[in-house]
Amino acid sequence: MEKITLNVQGMSCGHCVKAVEGSVGTLSGVSSVKVNLDAATVDVEFNPQEVSLDKIKETIDDQGYEVQ
Amino acid sequence: MEKITLNVQGMSCGHCVKAVEGSVGTLSGVSSVKVNLDAATVDVEFNPQEVSLDKIKETIDDQGYEVQ
Repeated sequence: MEKITLNVQGMSCGHCVKAVEGSVGTLSGVSSVKVNLDAATVDVEFNPQEVSLDKIKETIDDQGYEVQ
Repeated sequence: MEKITLNVQGMSCGHCVKAVEGSVGTLSGVSSVKVNLDAATVDVEFNPQEVSLDKIKETIDDQGYEVQ
């Protein structure tokens, strides 16, 4: 299991939190995801043998947010 | 039919627009609703014989936004 903190721009409200946590959280191999609106970060704990970091970033991007 | 522009705080993204327009737009007596994020306003066209202004404000409030 790996832990990473991604910097993500554009998340502004509770709906954004739900959109990111909901989409990333349902990826197979992701065990936890937590958005911090004030810090503009997303903490993700995942198994790199099951899901790639690129896939996680792509999922956030697909929700309309910019991973930096 | 009456037209009113409400000042609403807390709307920050496309999800907020959907939440407000979706909830107010389905009220019986409301013929149109348009959120302007930049201006922090909600334009509503409604029939006061079918729906009260208080009900419209309460609906926006229920979505988590502050009508001023």
